Amino acid sequence: MGQIDAWVATAAKQKLVRQQIDLGPLGDEEVEVQVEHCGLCHSDLSMLGNDWGWSRFPAVLGHEVVGTVVAVGRAAKGIHIGQKVGVGWTAESCMHCRRCLSGEHHMCAEAVPTIVGHRGGFASRVRAHWAWAIPLPETLDTSEAGPLLCGGITVFGPLALFARPASRVGVVGIGGLGHLALKFAAAFGCEVTAFTSSEGKFQEARGFGAHHVVSSRDTSAIKKLAGTLDLILVTVSVPLEWDSLLGALAPNGRLHLVGGLLEPIPVGAFSLIGGQKSLSGSPVGSPVGIATMLDFAARHRISPQTEHLPMSRVNEAVERLEAGKARYRIILEADF
Amino acid sequence: MGQIDAWVATAAKQKLVRQQIDLGPLGDEEVEVQVEHCGLCHSDLSMLGNDWGWSRFPAVLGHEVVGTVVAVGRAAKGIHIGQKVGVGWTAESCMHCRRCLSGEHHMCAEAVPTIVGHRGGFASRVRAHWAWAIPLPETLDTSEAGPLLCGGITVFGPLALFARPASRVGVVGIGGLGHLALKFAAAFGCEVTAFTSSEGKFQEARGFGAHHVVSSRDTSAIKKLAGTLDLILVTVSVPLEWDSLLGALAPNGRLHLVGGLLEPIPVGAFSLIGGQKSLSGSPVGSPVGIATMLDFAARHRISPQTEHLPMSRVNEAVERLEAGKARYRIILEADF
Repeated sequence: MGQIDAWVATAAKQKLVRQQIDLGPLGDEEVEVQVEHCGLCHSDLSMLGNDWGWSRFPAVLGHEVVGTVVAVGRAAKGIHIGQKVGVGWTAESCMHCRRCLSGEHHMCAEAVPTIVGHRGGFASRVRAHWAWAIPLPETLDTSEAGPLLCGGITVFGPLALFARPASRVGVVGIGGLGHLALKFAAAFGCEVTAFTSSEGKFQEARGFGAHHVVSSRDTSAIKKLAGTLDLILVTVSVPLEWDSLLGALAPNGRLHLVGGLLEPIPVGAFSLIGGQKSLSGSPVGSPVGIATMLDFAARHRISPQTEHLPMSRVNEAVERLEAGKARYRIILEADF
Repeated sequence: MGQIDAWVATAAKQKLVRQQIDLGPLGDEEVEVQVEHCGLCHSDLSMLGNDWGWSRFPAVLGHEVVGTVVAVGRAAKGIHIGQKVGVGWTAESCMHCRRCLSGEHHMCAEAVPTIVGHRGGFASRVRAHWAWAIPLPETLDTSEAGPLLCGGITVFGPLALFARPASRVGVVGIGGLGHLALKFAAAFGCEVTAFTSSEGKFQEARGFGAHHVVSSRDTSAIKKLAGTLDLILVTVSVPLEWDSLLGALAPNGRLHLVGGLLEPIPVGAFSLIGGQKSLSGSPVGSPVGIATMLDFAARHRISPQTEHLPMSRVNEAVERLEAGKARYRIILEADF
């Protein structure tokens, strides 16, 4: 059972090469999943480039996995062979710390990302702790579900925490995460404003649910929004017009980061104090958070807009995403 | 009725001089208060120095006023002559915007600070909109209540919003605001950690309710608190060990600013994202917020630790506060 085929990053910034890997015996708490589809996320690129400095090579990338359970460890709970499941950014957590016992497993200090120190989904099979193999709702289109497991939960999480039906929500960056954020926020009943630097995406953003579209490079247009938005979700990882964006927040507003920006954001105390504003961030979600998001997506028929490629063309997919050409998420189909 | 005696700042950084001022006829919605006591707040110094660039001279400073209502305008509501009231940072708001109608008058875009474009409390009498003359609870020691009206509500506000009885709360800066924050947080039932750069204040901080005291200059001591505090309230307006303080927050933690820091805070996205943390700020409180804080203070016998001086020695009081010698709040007694 331990032998898998995988596309392997042998070192930073190298093309992935096909190799066989022996995963060894299945852990008691693990399940093994036959990979069918796996989304390509921008953070796969960041890890491949070692942009954040904590990649570990050789690496098997891919953390938006959809597949079928083919083996379960002796102590695995709530999962059976033949079940359709998804595996996202996190593959394991300790299960006994206060975070895990509070249902916030995604903030467990010992959580193991699927693509760091673990083998990810650009492979024939992937393993995960049973709690992190999330059963997929029967009414969900599983061929399109992959990108929900990381991109989807990353934006659904803060929207579920902070948006209310009457909220005015801004989404900065209309890519893999941002286009899902528009769909979720519209389904929440919010008034939705998209911010993008690509004029070519203006019309599509409206199609995803945006009521207004603003150029993220147009400082004067952003300034005109002063005091109007309750929540601005930033999905990009590039420096922005931070002062104008904080100014666009209504009293009690929140600017929320989910993009892995490396440059520090210079925040003036007075830009927060007067309007009782917050700057915050969040990682991916817990098992229940992901399951709740999948239920919501199934009920509202929310799925990413995708391009499909066979997994054997993974290097081409990486280039396409790097060039900003993906509309809006690439799903790789396992073809080992 | 319009003629008052006042200590006037004629220009930035000048000594206050005693003058007579004619306030003109009382507005329909205004009340006039005979000043008995007025606290000296650090923001009086900031306005006197025009540190924030929006002072207006000549100015009558003083915005922690306690006194007795001596006149009420024809349209004033809920206030009668002879009533003991307090007037804090805000003297007027529009009363009809969404903020005011939501009970968040302190975030009204047209709110008028008591000491900017309005005459403050270093005077024989002060005026305010009726909603901003807050009746004092009968069981409150009015001679010590002044500092609650700005310093008190500034820290009570975010504690009431964000702290829960089992929260672990840090307070940075043990001065006029910080020592009240320790008292409030202890009365909330929280586990309280004081951060101060003055070793001389360690023992007193414990007396105010701190369970732990840490030097705010000791980076390694702050690093040892990594992941432990749910809320850190920053009452100072100097640059701090921001990375270590954000690191000291537990998952879902919040670093909250109430000090008027001018230097931007460099915030790394990853320091917020992983632990789902927030950086935020808040101004003073609404009329109901202030009244609620006064009720709480009266019930828990919370009052500031003060030094009293006659108002005629206001310039000496300013020097004493500027030199960091006040323990912990100065109250000026009207002696016109």
